[in-house]
Amino acid sequence: MTGQIEVVFQPSGRRRMADPGENVLDVARSIGVDLASVCGGKGTCGKCRVAVISGGEKLNELTEYELKKMTDRDIKKDYRFACQILVPTDAPLDAKSGHKRLVLKIPEESKTGEQRLQTEGRDVPIEINPIVKKYYFEVKKATLHDLVSDELRMLAELEKKYGLKDLVLTIEAAYQLPAAIRGAKTEDDMWTATAVVWNDQEIIAIEPGDTKDQFYGFAVDIGSTKVAGFLLDLNTGEVKSLAAIMNPQIPYGEDIMSRITFTIQRGEEAQEILHKVIVEGVNEICQKACDQAGINPELIYDWSLVGNTAMSHLFLKVLAKYVALAPYPPAVSRGINVRLKDFGMLGHPNAKAYFSSCIGGFVGADNVAVVLASDLGVSDELILALDIGTNTEIDLGSKELGAMCCSTASGPAFEGMQIAHGMRAATGAIERISVDPFTQEVDYKTIGDAPPVGICGSALVEAPSEFLKAGIMNFKGKIDKELLGKHKHVKQGEKGLEFIIAFKEEAGIDTDIWISQNDIRQLQLAKAAMHTGCSVLLHRMNVTEEDLDAIVVAGAFGNFIQPEAARTVGMYPETPLEKIRLVGNAAGTGARMNLVSRESRQRSENIPVIVKYHELAIDPMFLTEYANSMLFPYSDLSRYPETSELLLKAGRITEDQYNKFMEEREKRALVFDSRVDTQIAYEKGEKKD
Amino acid sequence: MTGQIEVVFQPSGRRRMADPGENVLDVARSIGVDLASVCGGKGTCGKCRVAVISGGEKLNELTEYELKKMTDRDIKKDYRFACQILVPTDAPLDAKSGHKRLVLKIPEESKTGEQRLQTEGRDVPIEINPIVKKYYFEVKKATLHDLVSDELRMLAELEKKYGLKDLVLTIEAAYQLPAAIRGAKTEDDMWTATAVVWNDQEIIAIEPGDTKDQFYGFAVDIGSTKVAGFLLDLNTGEVKSLAAIMNPQIPYGEDIMSRITFTIQRGEEAQEILHKVIVEGVNEICQKACDQAGINPELIYDWSLVGNTAMSHLFLKVLAKYVALAPYPPAVSRGINVRLKDFGMLGHPNAKAYFSSCIGGFVGADNVAVVLASDLGVSDELILALDIGTNTEIDLGSKELGAMCCSTASGPAFEGMQIAHGMRAATGAIERISVDPFTQEVDYKTIGDAPPVGICGSALVEAPSEFLKAGIMNFKGKIDKELLGKHKHVKQGEKGLEFIIAFKEEAGIDTDIWISQNDIRQLQLAKAAMHTGCSVLLHRMNVTEEDLDAIVVAGAFGNFIQPEAARTVGMYPETPLEKIRLVGNAAGTGARMNLVSRESRQRSENIPVIVKYHELAIDPMFLTEYANSMLFPYSDLSRYPETSELLLKAGRITEDQYNKFMEEREKRALVFDSRVDTQIAYEKGEKKD
Repeated sequence: MTGQIEVVFQPSGRRRMADPGENVLDVARSIGVDLASVCGGKGTCGKCRVAVISGGEKLNELTEYELKKMTDRDIKKDYRFACQILVPTDAPLDAKSGHKRLVLKIPEESKTGEQRLQTEGRDVPIEINPIVKKYYFEVKKATLHDLVSDELRMLAELEKKYGLKDLVLTIEAAYQLPAAIRGAKTEDDMWTATAVVWNDQEIIAIEPGDTKDQFYGFAVDIGSTKVAGFLLDLNTGEVKSLAAIMNPQIPYGEDIMSRITFTIQRGEEAQEILHKVIVEGVNEICQKACDQAGINPELIYDWSLVGNTAMSHLFLKVLAKYVALAPYPPAVSRGINVRLKDFGMLGHPNAKAYFSSCIGGFVGADNVAVVLASDLGVSDELILALDIGTNTEIDLGSKELGAMCCSTASGPAFEGMQIAHGMRAATGAIERISVDPFTQEVDYKTIGDAPPVGICGSALVEAPSEFLKAGIMNFKGKIDKELLGKHKHVKQGEKGLEFIIAFKEEAGIDTDIWISQNDIRQLQLAKAAMHTGCSVLLHRMNVTEEDLDAIVVAGAFGNFIQPEAARTVGMYPETPLEKIRLVGNAAGTGARMNLVSRESRQRSENIPVIVKYHELAIDPMFLTEYANSMLFPYSDLSRYPETSELLLKAGRITEDQYNKFMEEREKRALVFDSRVDTQIAYEKGEKKD
Repeated sequence: MTGQIEVVFQPSGRRRMADPGENVLDVARSIGVDLASVCGGKGTCGKCRVAVISGGEKLNELTEYELKKMTDRDIKKDYRFACQILVPTDAPLDAKSGHKRLVLKIPEESKTGEQRLQTEGRDVPIEINPIVKKYYFEVKKATLHDLVSDELRMLAELEKKYGLKDLVLTIEAAYQLPAAIRGAKTEDDMWTATAVVWNDQEIIAIEPGDTKDQFYGFAVDIGSTKVAGFLLDLNTGEVKSLAAIMNPQIPYGEDIMSRITFTIQRGEEAQEILHKVIVEGVNEICQKACDQAGINPELIYDWSLVGNTAMSHLFLKVLAKYVALAPYPPAVSRGINVRLKDFGMLGHPNAKAYFSSCIGGFVGADNVAVVLASDLGVSDELILALDIGTNTEIDLGSKELGAMCCSTASGPAFEGMQIAHGMRAATGAIERISVDPFTQEVDYKTIGDAPPVGICGSALVEAPSEFLKAGIMNFKGKIDKELLGKHKHVKQGEKGLEFIIAFKEEAGIDTDIWISQNDIRQLQLAKAAMHTGCSVLLHRMNVTEEDLDAIVVAGAFGNFIQPEAARTVGMYPETPLEKIRLVGNAAGTGARMNLVSRESRQRSENIPVIVKYHELAIDPMFLTEYANSMLFPYSDLSRYPETSELLLKAGRITEDQYNKFMEEREKRALVFDSRVDTQIAYEKGEKKD
C-alpha cells in the first residue's frame, strides 16, 4: 500500500488513495465525484474529460479515443478522458499531506446537469448590505426634566450611534413606537428597542429589545413557466431554504402573449386575476420556504423580485397591453417598491417588495438580473451573456465599450415543448447522448440511471452535435436518407426520418424513444435565432468572437446544455470552452443580490441606462445572418476553428477544406482590423466619406 | 350740499358724504360700518373708538366722556369716540376725488366679534407653493425606433421642462400611466398628460391631458371641541368654502383627559373608535365644503391638519396613553404624512394628509400653527403669542432671542362652560358690557341686537374689567357686599353675590341674566394661569413686557375678547393696545399655510426645534407668580401704567398711589437693566459668582 497515489478531484476536493493502474473514472465514481460518462468507460463518448492540474508526469500516453475526440487546444490544456487514464506508478510528493498526489479538475462541461442545478441555491458572493436594516438602540426614559417625544429621543440616538439623519417615521412605525421603546429595559433602566429602517430613510418598524438576529428576506424569480423563491438571512446573505412552483398564470395562457391577450380581451378583471394568482403563487413558495426553514414569515422584512417585462407588469397589475402591441414599450421600466400589505404579500406588515428594473418590452428585470450577476458592463472583460428560455435575451458589453442587448424568439424547443419525446430533467430523462463518429454506435445516460422515458434539453442539443460529427445529419440539419435500412437507429416516421436513441426494449415506456427530423428543425430555428442575436450585437459593437473574454450562459436550461455540444451546433459564436461560464438561474442570483445589497440595487437601476436595447427586427443584417445561422454550426466554418478540427478528425471535412477555412480566418482578421481602424478614423474625424 | 364732507372709514373703505354736524357714529351705522357701541351713543361705554387719520383739524374738542375713559396715550394717538364727534364744517380737499375728506380708522378692538370671526376664512398671505404640484407635459409617442418605456418618456420630459429629477413613480401612478399618457393627444399627435407630484419626489398620479385647473386641498384644525375645515384652491390659495362641526369624540369624553382615560381603560378598541369618529368627522366637513363649492372630493390632492397633541395622537391612532401620564411625552412629535386611503379619508385616492409637528405633550400642532402664522421666532419682532382655549399655549420669542413656550390650564371658562349664563357667540348672546364708572349704569349689546339669552366669552372678560373700573368688585375680584340693596343689579344668589346684566323683562329667556361671584372666580383662575405663563416666559427669556413688539392673541375665543378688557383684567402683561394682534383661528391659518406652502411646512418642522418647551410646574417662580396674577389686573399695578391711569380717572386709585406706581416702574427698569447686564457679563465669563 505504500505505493499508493492520492487522487484529488477539484473543485469538490473529494479524494482517495488509489493503487497504480486503477482506472481514474472508477476512482471518481467510487467516491461519488460528479463526472459525466455516457459510453460507460469505453472511450467513445468523450464526456468524462478532466484537466490534469498536477502529478500527471507519469500518466499513460493519450489513447486513440482521446486523439480522435479532442482538439489540439484541449490536448494542450492537459485534458484527458478519465476513462482512458490509469493511476500512475509515481507522482510528486505533497509536502503537507505526505502523499504522492495526482490532482485533476472536473470542468463544468463534464458535470451532469443535476449537479449544476444546485448552483441555484448558492450564496451570493457580494458584500451584505441590504436596503433594509435593523438598528438596535438604547435611550434614557422620559422624565419631567427631559420631556422630549419618544420619536426625537429615538432619532437622536440613531443619529448619534449610527449617523442616521432625516429619517422619516412611517405611521405604521409610529403605532409601534411608544409601546416598543417601553417594552424592554436594560439593567440600568434604559429603554431599548430595534428600529427597522428602509434605505436609511424610512423607519418602517420598531421592535422592543434587540431583534437584530431575526432578519430575513425573500427573493423571487418569476418565470413565465416556473417561479422560484429563496429565503435569505439578511444578516449573512445565507440561503435558508428555497421553493418553486409552476407559474399559476399558466391556466390563463401558456405563454406571455396569450396571457396578455387574455388581459386585452377581458380588461381590468383579467389583470386583477393574473395579479392575484401570481401573488398567491409567490406567497405559497414564501410560506413553503419559511416552513422548511422554521421561520415566521413576519420576520421577512424585504422582498426582491425579478421577471420578464410581461411578468413584472402582470405582477404589479400595471396595464400590460402595450407590451404586446407594436412597438411594445413597457409602461414602467425602473425598479419599483410596493408595500407588502398593499399587495397582500407575506412578510412583515410594514415591509416592502422591490421589483427590479427592465430594459424594454422583451428585455426584462430577469435580464437585468443576469447582467447584474455576470458583472457585464462593469467588468473590464468583454462578456456575451445569453439567458436561454422561450425567449433568449442576449447582452454584450464591457466597462470600456458599454453594452447592448437584444431579445430573440428562441421558441419553446429548449423547454422540451413540440419535441416528440421531450421531457423535463427528471429521473429517466436521457440527459447525455453519444454517437461514435466512426462506428456510429449510440450511447446515452439517463438521470438517476433509470430506464429511459424521454429526452431532456441537454440531450436535445447534444444529439445534433453528435449527429453532425458522426455524419448522421448534414450541415443543413438533414438526417441522411442513405442510412435508412443501413443504420438500425434510423427509421421512417410519420413526418420524416427519426433517429432512435433508446429502443422500446430498454426503455421505461412502451415505445422507442427517438429524435425526429422535426425536433432537429425546432432546435435549428432556436439556435439560429440565438446565434443571429449574438452575431448582430458583435457586429454592431465592432468586436468579434475572438475579442470575447467570456460567454455567460444563464437560465435553468442553459445550465444543462453541454458547452461543447452548444458550440458544435453553433448555438453561439465559437470561443474556447474555458471561456464559457454556466451560471444557472442568474436571474435568481440577481434577485438575491438585489435583496442583500443596496449597491446591487443601484446597479440594477443603472443597467437599463448602460445597456442599450437593439431591435433585431429592424437591423438590416438580420435576415442574412439568420439564414447563415441556420446551418450547423454556421454557414462559414472558418468562424468555428475547433469545431472544424473535430469535424476534420471525424472525417466530415477534408484536410483541404480545413486548411482553406483557416486561411480565410486569418484574412478576415486582417480585414476586420482594417474596418475597425477605418471606423475609428471616421469617429475621430480623421477620414471623410 | 356743497358744504358736505366725505367721511371715509378704514380699513373697509366705506364712505359717504355727510353734512357738518352729523354724528359720526350715526354716519358709520348708516352705511353698515362694523363699529361696536354698547351704550347706544351716550358716551358712557367708550367702545366706539376710532382713530383720526386725516381731516380732523376742525373736529369738536374732546368731551368729558372721552377724557374720563381714555388714557393719555390714546388721546395722543388721536383716538376719539365716534359717538362724541360730529362731522366738521371743513376738511382738507382730496385732490383725486375733489371732496373735502375726514378719514377715520376703526381699530380691531372697536369691531364687533362677528366681524372679527370672519377672518377665519381669510386667504393666507404667503407665496403659493404647495408640496403637491401638477405638471403638464407632452411626449412623442413610442415607435419601433423609439422604444423607451412610458415611464422614462415621461421622466425625461418632466426633467427637461421642469427640472424634476430622481422622481419616484408610485405603484398607484404606474397603474394610471399607460392609459393616461395615451388618453389625450395634441394636434401634432403628441401624447399629453399631467403628473401629480408630491414634494418634487413622488409621482402620485398621472391624468390624461391638462388637469392643472382642477387642484384643491383641504386644511383642518381639529380642536377638542370644534373641528373646522377649509377647502382651498391649490393654484391660488383661495378659500373656496369652509365647514365646521363639533368634535365627534365628545361623546367619549368632554375633555382631552377623559378621552385618553377612555383609551387607557378600553385599550386599542377605544383608540380605534376615537380614530374612526374623528376621521368620519373630518370627512363630513370635507364633503360639506366640497358640496358647498361644487367640487368633486377626488380633486383634493392634499390635506393639512393641525390639532393639539392628544388630538393628533388620537387622529393618527398612535398610542395616546403616555400623553396623559407624567411626564407626558408625546410618542410622535414631528410632522407625519399618511395616505388618505390608509385612513379612509376623502380626496384623491393616491393623495396624502400631513399632520403637523408638535412641541410637547401640551403644546401641539395647533400651537406650532399659531407660531407659524404669527411669524414668531423668525421675525425680528419680539412676539408673545397666546392661543386661548381650555388650555392656553403661550409662546415668546424673536429671531434674535430664540423662543420658548409653555402651556397653562386656563380651564373651560373661556368656552362658556361652568359659567351661570355662559353661551357661545350666537344671536342673543350678550357680547359687550359697559358699566359707567361714575353712575354704575349698565349697558350691553347682543349679537344681532336680539333680546339677550346668555353671555358669551367676550362679555365674560369685559364684565370684570368694567366691574373693576366702576368699583363693583375689588382688586381681589370680590363683588362689593355693600352694593347689596343699594345697586339694583346686585343680588344674593344661592352661591354668593350675583350681578345682573339683563333683567328678565328685557331678556329673551324667562329669567334674569347675571354674572356670579363664581363666574368671576372661574375667569380669575383662567386669567391668572395665562398671566403666570406669560410672566414666567418673559422672566426666563430676560425680557419685560416693555420689550414686546406684539402680543398675538389667537383662538376663536381670543378673537372675541376686547383687548382693552383683557388688559384691564390682567389676562396678559400690559402693552399699548396697538401692539395687540387678534388673529382669530391662527391654528386654522397655520393649517392653510401648511397646505399651500412647502416653505411653511418646513418652518412647521423647524418650530419644535426653535421653540423650547418650558415646564411651568417645575419652575420655582410659578407659585408666587400665580398668586400675584390672581389679582385684577396684577399684584403690582406699576406693571399696568395705562390701566392704572384709567383706574385713577375712574377714582379707584388715588393720585398718590398712581405716582408711587410710576416711580416704582422707573426704578424697576433700572434694576432690570442691571440684572440683564450682570447676566450677560456672566455668560461672557467677565464676571464670576
